[in-house]
Amino acid sequence: MKVSIIGTGITRFGELWDKSLLDLAFEAGEEALRESGLKKEHVDALFVANMLAIKFDTQAHLGAAVAQNLKLSCPAYHVEAACASGGLAINLARESIISGRNKNVLVVGVEKMTDVPTPDAVAGLMGAASEEERDSGLTFPGLYALMAKAYFSKFKSNERDLAYSSVKNHFHGSLNKNAQFQNLITFDQVLSSTKIADPLKLLDCSPITDGAAAVVLSSQLTKNAPFISASQVATDSLNLAQRDTLFEIKASQKAAKNAFAEAGIEAKDLDLAEVHDCFSIAEIMAMEDLGFSQKGEGAKLIKSTQTTLGGKMPVNTSGGLKACGHPVGATGVKQVVEVARQLRGRAGNRQVEGAKIGLTHNVGGTGATVVVHIIQN
Amino acid sequence: MKVSIIGTGITRFGELWDKSLLDLAFEAGEEALRESGLKKEHVDALFVANMLAIKFDTQAHLGAAVAQNLKLSCPAYHVEAACASGGLAINLARESIISGRNKNVLVVGVEKMTDVPTPDAVAGLMGAASEEERDSGLTFPGLYALMAKAYFSKFKSNERDLAYSSVKNHFHGSLNKNAQFQNLITFDQVLSSTKIADPLKLLDCSPITDGAAAVVLSSQLTKNAPFISASQVATDSLNLAQRDTLFEIKASQKAAKNAFAEAGIEAKDLDLAEVHDCFSIAEIMAMEDLGFSQKGEGAKLIKSTQTTLGGKMPVNTSGGLKACGHPVGATGVKQVVEVARQLRGRAGNRQVEGAKIGLTHNVGGTGATVVVHIIQN
Repeated sequence: MKVSIIGTGITRFGELWDKSLLDLAFEAGEEALRESGLKKEHVDALFVANMLAIKFDTQAHLGAAVAQNLKLSCPAYHVEAACASGGLAINLARESIISGRNKNVLVVGVEKMTDVPTPDAVAGLMGAASEEERDSGLTFPGLYALMAKAYFSKFKSNERDLAYSSVKNHFHGSLNKNAQFQNLITFDQVLSSTKIADPLKLLDCSPITDGAAAVVLSSQLTKNAPFISASQVATDSLNLAQRDTLFEIKASQKAAKNAFAEAGIEAKDLDLAEVHDCFSIAEIMAMEDLGFSQKGEGAKLIKSTQTTLGGKMPVNTSGGLKACGHPVGATGVKQVVEVARQLRGRAGNRQVEGAKIGLTHNVGGTGATVVVHIIQN
Repeated sequence: MKVSIIGTGITRFGELWDKSLLDLAFEAGEEALRESGLKKEHVDALFVANMLAIKFDTQAHLGAAVAQNLKLSCPAYHVEAACASGGLAINLARESIISGRNKNVLVVGVEKMTDVPTPDAVAGLMGAASEEERDSGLTFPGLYALMAKAYFSKFKSNERDLAYSSVKNHFHGSLNKNAQFQNLITFDQVLSSTKIADPLKLLDCSPITDGAAAVVLSSQLTKNAPFISASQVATDSLNLAQRDTLFEIKASQKAAKNAFAEAGIEAKDLDLAEVHDCFSIAEIMAMEDLGFSQKGEGAKLIKSTQTTLGGKMPVNTSGGLKACGHPVGATGVKQVVEVARQLRGRAGNRQVEGAKIGLTHNVGGTGATVVVHIIQN
């Protein structure tokens, strides 16, 4: 069965101190519903993706909370897998259509992260990691720094190789009016930015962000509505220490392999991709894990400008997590919104001409959960 | 398609200070897998139900965390709907089998609530309610007290009518070695216990509890494995203030009606039920909303001993939330474990003779989410 994307919605991403968690969810949800043309009584289920509302905002039961705000009376679910919550919610929403239970499902991803002090946000995010990693005093920049060090050691590369990703993604963000950062940055600015966790510097890291994104999935085939031809979830150990290698994310490899098989396509068939660049090293590993480049050549691919808008296969035209921002529960949904709008030719000044097939890659934590979607016209 | 319950697992419920959240999830998950006879590589997905781990334990990403502990490498999901998290996880797990994606799915519900001070636990639980209700200083006993007052006003009843439920459930709990409270209590003890939120007294309220429960669902039909013939989720407004009536839970009525239709049975066909007695008034409303008694006669039904073990249709043979305990993410799964074991004739000294059809009723918050399952031999 084909599951179409008949509506998309997204808020501005950034430090949105004048909007609450539920305001953001409402705004994105309403836009997606409006675009779908569905009446609210025809929405059969709501899936909400969020990681931290119960911690930062004392709001659990988010399915019911968002349903009430949107005046929906359908069954409502809240799904969480850290930064992969959005991808996971879309996976389950699609499954509920394939099972025959639902015809039309709204998925809303939302996160409100800037209302708590930054140290609290950083500590809360460590919920995506393991107890041992928290107790060791590690942070997410620290965890990805360990992966970057392992990558450097394996492939004889260095921090100069990391910098291309952020430069590209800020360029893409400069074309996206919803992006948190719309300023251009240079290679030298990345390299000279403040060290966060060696070798990662400030401009290697995605920010803390408020925002929401939404899609309406449907069993009805609508003209011009792209469909999700594959949705795959893969897992790995939560602890980095339990993995054989740190220079790759094996769950990305597995989810991508299964997704290409499900859709019956290959990496070379893709016109664009939104990948999980929570840190620059993550985008480089994604290039390799998803089969876009050979092992150790992810940075070279990015440097070649083939993944820049106008190149052979643009990556993160939204600006990615780095420039568009990373409201963790919203990110996986935002990726699907971006690809769906590209496939419908509605991406404005960052349109990938003739885009027909796109991929999204959403990572939870350091890769304990990975969700890959393939979306086609 | 028939989805069978081929394995069940449950921990002791109570104040388990020597066990962590992940210890409990492991213990219940391992027992369910052992009972199913499945090898771990044949588990296609894991669903974890939990409400508060990110708040009380800084652990999000619970799908991956529990998967790692159980040495499962399948896709893993975390689902939440406050106290209905367990029911919701079983609903989605079953859906993922019906869609054809999975053959065998493990569902683990878990909550660790006694490691934080009680006022923090009470405040955290208010995440199941709305912001307005939190800001009004309401607690869950307060919210259900409002419902009890409305019920008294509508049906000319009083606090004496509430007391039968807890007496019965403690009797059932006395037969359950996993129950948090295994002591018998009397009608007079309930009435003379400390006032919590008028008219609710201490012995009208379910406790704060640690515990886990697990089931293995499967598309394979196994001899003696009961199957889930209906799974329905219904929602209502999160705010009590937005409801027309407070003496009933309309989402319970809707979920039950849809479940009876899906299973093709009526309330009178049931041999037993596990209902959501977070407060005594909740069990009374459940009797009416689920169609076990006429409106206003729920207390009379309980008083008649028809819902006591040995009666026509025992309710809460596990001891219910009141005596067995209420680890919120585990409760909806525990209900299904209890009914499945009853249907397999494995409930020991609290066996309902000849039980063939059972119902579970799991409520999130004050009824913004309700999940009803029907389970048959």
